[in-house]
Amino acid sequence: MTDSPTMALAKDLISRQSVTPEDAGCQDVMIERLKALGFNIEIMVFEDTTNFWARRGTQAPLFAFAGHTDVVPAGNLSHWETNPFEPTIKDGVLYGRGAADMKGSLASMVVAVEQFIAQYPDHNGSIGFLITSDEEGPFINGTVRVVEALMARGEHIDMCIVGEPSSTHHVGDVVKNGRRGSITGDLTVKGIQGHVAYPHLAKNPVHQSLLAIHELTTTEWDKGNEYFPPTSFQIPNVQAGTGASNVIPGEFNVQFNLRFSTELNNDIIIERINAILDKHDLDYDLKWTFNGDPFLTDTGALLDAVVDAVDAVNQTKPALLTTGGTSDGRFIARMGGQVVELGPVNATIHKVNECVSVDDLEKLTKMYQKTLENLFS
Amino acid sequence: MTDSPTMALAKDLISRQSVTPEDAGCQDVMIERLKALGFNIEIMVFEDTTNFWARRGTQAPLFAFAGHTDVVPAGNLSHWETNPFEPTIKDGVLYGRGAADMKGSLASMVVAVEQFIAQYPDHNGSIGFLITSDEEGPFINGTVRVVEALMARGEHIDMCIVGEPSSTHHVGDVVKNGRRGSITGDLTVKGIQGHVAYPHLAKNPVHQSLLAIHELTTTEWDKGNEYFPPTSFQIPNVQAGTGASNVIPGEFNVQFNLRFSTELNNDIIIERINAILDKHDLDYDLKWTFNGDPFLTDTGALLDAVVDAVDAVNQTKPALLTTGGTSDGRFIARMGGQVVELGPVNATIHKVNECVSVDDLEKLTKMYQKTLENLFS
Repeated sequence: MTDSPTMALAKDLISRQSVTPEDAGCQDVMIERLKALGFNIEIMVFEDTTNFWARRGTQAPLFAFAGHTDVVPAGNLSHWETNPFEPTIKDGVLYGRGAADMKGSLASMVVAVEQFIAQYPDHNGSIGFLITSDEEGPFINGTVRVVEALMARGEHIDMCIVGEPSSTHHVGDVVKNGRRGSITGDLTVKGIQGHVAYPHLAKNPVHQSLLAIHELTTTEWDKGNEYFPPTSFQIPNVQAGTGASNVIPGEFNVQFNLRFSTELNNDIIIERINAILDKHDLDYDLKWTFNGDPFLTDTGALLDAVVDAVDAVNQTKPALLTTGGTSDGRFIARMGGQVVELGPVNATIHKVNECVSVDDLEKLTKMYQKTLENLFS
Repeated sequence: MTDSPTMALAKDLISRQSVTPEDAGCQDVMIERLKALGFNIEIMVFEDTTNFWARRGTQAPLFAFAGHTDVVPAGNLSHWETNPFEPTIKDGVLYGRGAADMKGSLASMVVAVEQFIAQYPDHNGSIGFLITSDEEGPFINGTVRVVEALMARGEHIDMCIVGEPSSTHHVGDVVKNGRRGSITGDLTVKGIQGHVAYPHLAKNPVHQSLLAIHELTTTEWDKGNEYFPPTSFQIPNVQAGTGASNVIPGEFNVQFNLRFSTELNNDIIIERINAILDKHDLDYDLKWTFNGDPFLTDTGALLDAVVDAVDAVNQTKPALLTTGGTSDGRFIARMGGQVVELGPVNATIHKVNECVSVDDLEKLTKMYQKTLENLFS
């Protein structure tokens, strides 16, 4: 059996070892296909990262697909049943690193656009592709830089589908129509170092901090809302001590991360956390890292078009959720447009034996194509 | 001015770079002097550590001096005003690594014994020297092994002066007549690792533990007693996390150390700490390290002899204290005899520009000699 266009392109992309931030020629493959469709191509290299922006048409509104060609490392090869960079179909499932996250989606996007343009060469609006090879890495020189470049010249994406694997059991059962914000605090509580045999000459910052940190972990930050679960607070890292069992540490380092709803913002969080630490009379430094604001696309033409497209293929509407980790959608949302995420099942991403259902990938191509038809035909 | 016998020997020992566990010939110098006095010498090498046991006489009671020839590293040489291994006297103070901890004491012991034996060659009882080069290191192959060897053959030290720097402002203002016990617990609280974006699928062991650990740090373990301050609990080390800010840790490691009085023992401490952890419903492993039981010499011929000797030199009695860190006295006390610590001022030990007052060292020789006279003349 000959591979479908989507499957053939997905296999071609998976066979290229584009471990983040490498692109390994994936973008060239996509660019060649898009050029043939009349897209204007702009390659944007920032530091070690290759990105491209492609656009067909000059009219508003501007709709774009967004995604990444880089993948996470394969991990322990002996745990893979196939070679992660030799795409293999078994029992209707395509195996390979990036099959679900997100070379399958990239293939579906390109083929969907090819089929749509074949049918509607003079479509309304504009179609764009925002593709990076830095989504799995530090996300410094990827989507965020492209978005900045576009905004600087007044080019705004009005509607965007990010091809992240949003689905749970089968493609389209979940569309992500927003994401929580993320903020990280690096707290250093200061004490006085000393010998454990002379505790009266020292001040143990671990002892000093325990009740304050307990209060942080048990605070109700909000109740969430219709689209967002309640804000969560987690401590990923703590450290104190020299390693010696007879030295009272001089500092206690506690890192915490909040995933927060649209009920909160960075300023409110900082104010409330400082108030708790101050109440417990701690001597501390606190450094903040702002990973991304929450965003929400709860109405609009894009959401309608996507929901209808999923319904047309699956005969059932998707659930709209905002759960899960961050994605490049947070950067694109800064442009003020509508952003949703629609992609394959995420059960195997970042794991060995990553895979995607062949049938799901064909359906995804249809969902993308139908979305374009709903918007621009 | 010619150096006194004590000063000459102290300088000789300091000039030998016996950074733990090296002995650098210090023990040979002492052995030569003791052999000349008729001591029977037994060199005991365990692994990388050289120790010796010297004894003069076969009668009971057996009195011994105990000490160590090893020193801690010099540290940053640029902060020393003199070469740490070139003993230097300035303004009545002898500078050098080990001057106070405890090559000065070793010199005083040897000279005191020489002067005592010159006066009382046929003294009562027996005099011993228990010398190690492993006190500043892991204390595995030093005093503890010599004590085991002596006990195995039924040779018990009845009375012992450890030459550790016990004094605060001038030599003899403090005699240590006991030491607290020390026990270390390595606690691992087990949770379930996960992604911070999905806290409902994980269990953060840091969050789980904070109240239990707070209770440990605020518990009154005892009120101490006439000779011991209240038992203290300190957390020297804590660690959790992979370093990544988006991973909920699977384990939380907390190390704590108790310095405890004779009101408690290892079994009671373990039982009480397990009860607190169990009450908070934690899933944990707890490994114990028994660093030493508390010991106390609150009456007896040795304490009387030492207090009188200090009084004879200083015209004032010493304070009897049990504060401060551990010493090899805890191992010698296992023999069931009387153990006290008498040595120079400890203000500069383990620091740069370690030093001892020349005058204090001469007084210390007299105190040791007078103790021998009180016991055996």
